[in-house]
Amino acid sequence: MEHNLEHTIALLERTPATLNALLRDLPEAWTSPNEGENTFSAFDVVGHLIHGERTDWMPRTKRLLESGESVPFDKFDRLAQERDSIGKTLPQLLDEFARLRAENIAALRALNLKADDFSRRGRHQMLGVVTLSQLIATWAAHDLTHLHQISRVMAHQYRDAVGPWTKFLGVMQCNGHSE
Amino acid sequence: MEHNLEHTIALLERTPATLNALLRDLPEAWTSPNEGENTFSAFDVVGHLIHGERTDWMPRTKRLLESGESVPFDKFDRLAQERDSIGKTLPQLLDEFARLRAENIAALRALNLKADDFSRRGRHQMLGVVTLSQLIATWAAHDLTHLHQISRVMAHQYRDAVGPWTKFLGVMQCNGHSE
Repeated sequence: MEHNLEHTIALLERTPATLNALLRDLPEAWTSPNEGENTFSAFDVVGHLIHGERTDWMPRTKRLLESGESVPFDKFDRLAQERDSIGKTLPQLLDEFARLRAENIAALRALNLKADDFSRRGRHQMLGVVTLSQLIATWAAHDLTHLHQISRVMAHQYRDAVGPWTKFLGVMQCNGHSE
Repeated sequence: MEHNLEHTIALLERTPATLNALLRDLPEAWTSPNEGENTFSAFDVVGHLIHGERTDWMPRTKRLLESGESVPFDKFDRLAQERDSIGKTLPQLLDEFARLRAENIAALRALNLKADDFSRRGRHQMLGVVTLSQLIATWAAHDLTHLHQISRVMAHQYRDAVGPWTKFLGVMQCNGHSE
């Protein structure tokens, strides 16, 4: 389907509660392990989403609206959470994500974007010219890619435990490991 | 990690609330479409999970405990929801899933399984001999495979909308399409 702002916001609004329902007070045996070297745990993902709320989606939206294609977006630090999450608990991160997301959705609504605005263009430092519509759709799809990742990372912890069933479980076959 | 009943139950308990937070009252533009012919929508997945609660996990656990390897599990109907979900709304299915899951977790706890029980063996009609530990671990991993699937099916609806970002989104690359 084409991008639809209300559909996007409906999804963006639900992600904090979804992660809260899935992860809060879940044993660390599920939330701390990752899939191996240089991969994210569920804990890491929540920190990564927080960093996106702070530095990616709304800052890029504002850059695009203010500067168009003339000033590219700032580079996103995919590993910021290794620094920023130190000393924090997962419940603290879930609370922080929920607060930032609510603020950003309010800021997005306050822009009062009109149909014409969605074709406005900005510049991504690697992808080149992108539209506002693509940027905001990606915000929602990025939530889904990390929900997809969290379910895969957690399932990975039971790869041996499920024995022969592993071949019936799509999540054990997934190769969608990029971010 | 090895199978751990309390870890498994912690996950099984959270899935209804997770799906509720993600899907309840979400626009049908997200929950009705699938990934193409013979694939599941988010709506289909919830119906499929309900059928699992009714016919798969606890009935198989009881079969294994009662009959060991001598009587194989009944075959699971992967498409039962096409029949059973007719005329129901997604909120109704979410409620039904939550109720059945709570009943089944209570039934699982009531079995008072001991460490020795988890190595008891049953027979899967295709996989052959399986252990109780593997069966119960798969119950939880099956939740994760369908959370993984739902996030992928929903992201698929924005495949075009995200434009060039599709190559950065792992969920758009996922090939873990089996069940």
